[in-house]
Amino acid sequence: MLRRGFLVLGTAAGLLGGSASAFAQADPLPSWNDGAPKKAILDFVSRTTASGGADFVPVDQRIATFDNDGTLWTEQPIYFQFAFAIDRVKALAPQHPEWKDREPFKSVLANDIPGIVASGEKGLLEIVAATHTGMTVEEFSRIVSEWTATARHPRFNRLYIDLVYQPMLELMTFLRANQFKTFIVSGGGIEFMRPWTEKVYGIPPEQVVGSSGVVKFELRDGKPMLIKEPKVEFIDDGPGKPVGINRFIGRRPVFAFGNSDGDQQMLEYTAGGDGLRFMGLVHHTDAVREYAYDRQSHIGKLDKAWDEAVRRKWTVVDMKADWNTIYPFERK
Amino acid sequence: MLRRGFLVLGTAAGLLGGSASAFAQADPLPSWNDGAPKKAILDFVSRTTASGGADFVPVDQRIATFDNDGTLWTEQPIYFQFAFAIDRVKALAPQHPEWKDREPFKSVLANDIPGIVASGEKGLLEIVAATHTGMTVEEFSRIVSEWTATARHPRFNRLYIDLVYQPMLELMTFLRANQFKTFIVSGGGIEFMRPWTEKVYGIPPEQVVGSSGVVKFELRDGKPMLIKEPKVEFIDDGPGKPVGINRFIGRRPVFAFGNSDGDQQMLEYTAGGDGLRFMGLVHHTDAVREYAYDRQSHIGKLDKAWDEAVRRKWTVVDMKADWNTIYPFERK
Repeated sequence: MLRRGFLVLGTAAGLLGGSASAFAQADPLPSWNDGAPKKAILDFVSRTTASGGADFVPVDQRIATFDNDGTLWTEQPIYFQFAFAIDRVKALAPQHPEWKDREPFKSVLANDIPGIVASGEKGLLEIVAATHTGMTVEEFSRIVSEWTATARHPRFNRLYIDLVYQPMLELMTFLRANQFKTFIVSGGGIEFMRPWTEKVYGIPPEQVVGSSGVVKFELRDGKPMLIKEPKVEFIDDGPGKPVGINRFIGRRPVFAFGNSDGDQQMLEYTAGGDGLRFMGLVHHTDAVREYAYDRQSHIGKLDKAWDEAVRRKWTVVDMKADWNTIYPFERK
Repeated sequence: MLRRGFLVLGTAAGLLGGSASAFAQADPLPSWNDGAPKKAILDFVSRTTASGGADFVPVDQRIATFDNDGTLWTEQPIYFQFAFAIDRVKALAPQHPEWKDREPFKSVLANDIPGIVASGEKGLLEIVAATHTGMTVEEFSRIVSEWTATARHPRFNRLYIDLVYQPMLELMTFLRANQFKTFIVSGGGIEFMRPWTEKVYGIPPEQVVGSSGVVKFELRDGKPMLIKEPKVEFIDDGPGKPVGINRFIGRRPVFAFGNSDGDQQMLEYTAGGDGLRFMGLVHHTDAVREYAYDRQSHIGKLDKAWDEAVRRKWTVVDMKADWNTIYPFERK
């Protein structure tokens, strides 16, 4: 309740035009340094929630969407879902002796990432099929939960779900306190995210939009089952993101945050509506505390979306300069 | 607030085992006559919300799903979405002089329902393509909103959206007051329902699951657009309902209500989870106040699901006996 009180105060401070220093204790975004992105967020929320104001947005239109990989948690040195798939191949290998001599599994078992990449999209789909399908949705959810409770990131030696961005947790809490409904819109697998997004981000399963495989209903011995099949159903990336937003949410966001070219169309779609909008990108500039990458990166490439953001004056977060804390565990 | 107070009281009365007459004023389901279905609903909600009780369901698991056509509103003499499509064909006919001589449009323009049915699935898909696609999702939403604000049901001479069931509105309000999250899971088109479900049922767009066509993202003159294409994407009916629930909600319901064989798998899937569950069917038995139909009906056929409900002791509502009010406009 105290925290919520602070958040409400924070909004009130914004409305009253109070300076950040005078209301230091009420800062809803303590991990954000003073600067253009923080100011843009506070201004946007103040203006869209000021009833009677020119930029007021009714509560039912306060839809905020967030990319996941690289926007809410780290995505280097490989997407965490891919780390999960590699761990699963290793766990399942004793039941598949043939994998020792067969690509892409041979490369996976040898920790040969270039070898896996060389197997191309076909190889990646084989890995996904072997690790993500042929079971019920509940079994898959249990496997994901076990992995997120135990698997650790090689560089930070932390659980993967500990590598979420504290500033974005604060931002989502601040938005929700101001009656925005927060959604994840990720290229990642919807069923890979749902088991932990509520606990980690406060986002329930039905507010997670992601890529998916075909699922089939079956009665086995009279018991109803939903079986995950080795067939891609929907890729929620690039132009798929506005499509996924329309399908799952049915309303155009007024606020969207991403970090890569895969988020460009989501930001364009958000910008395309009437009235005040917020479009944000996280630029990974901190090789010491996290990672530094953009135009040349294979993972989370930020190139065309960055150019468009600069041209259209969208908010670009410089991680190194704008975030005083990156991970929750850094706080005392 | 007063109404909400009554609903909370209603729950308390259930917990205390108070008789319906002693707490008449606090009845959360006044349009339901005393009988097995009303008792089953009240008992289910009491038991699943009694903290510390053996049947307690945590708030995040309180997922309730409702079919729409025939469960929340009338579906006779034809599905209302089909009435919409027919009205649209007539409205668009001046721009399509060729329709006068071409099936299925010729039959539509002649109000020849058997002729339309004779055109088969191919004909129906042509009608859907001509009336539901080739525009942006926003344009379609606007067309639907105009139709629901003006089109009238031929028998009742009421707006179609007035033909919702008062007992089900009370039930959804009662469930929400007890922290259940209510969803629509309908074979109808998702974009046909979303423009009005919040106003009519209190269910926001993102809690509506339905059938859908392919939607494509395009930039036209730099403006982002979502265009509805003439291609079926997903049929949310029969075995598609558990699949749609998994895709959109990501949790198995503990409470589900339907009215036809198209809801059988949703009820089976709901029943297949652990702990106390509620499975309900509306049986249309009132030809005077609404319609009477079941095993032989082309629309909303209730045959196999009915047999399973009787065998497994699911709740079957006898509309004539169990509902003292059908439509909101009947109330003084």
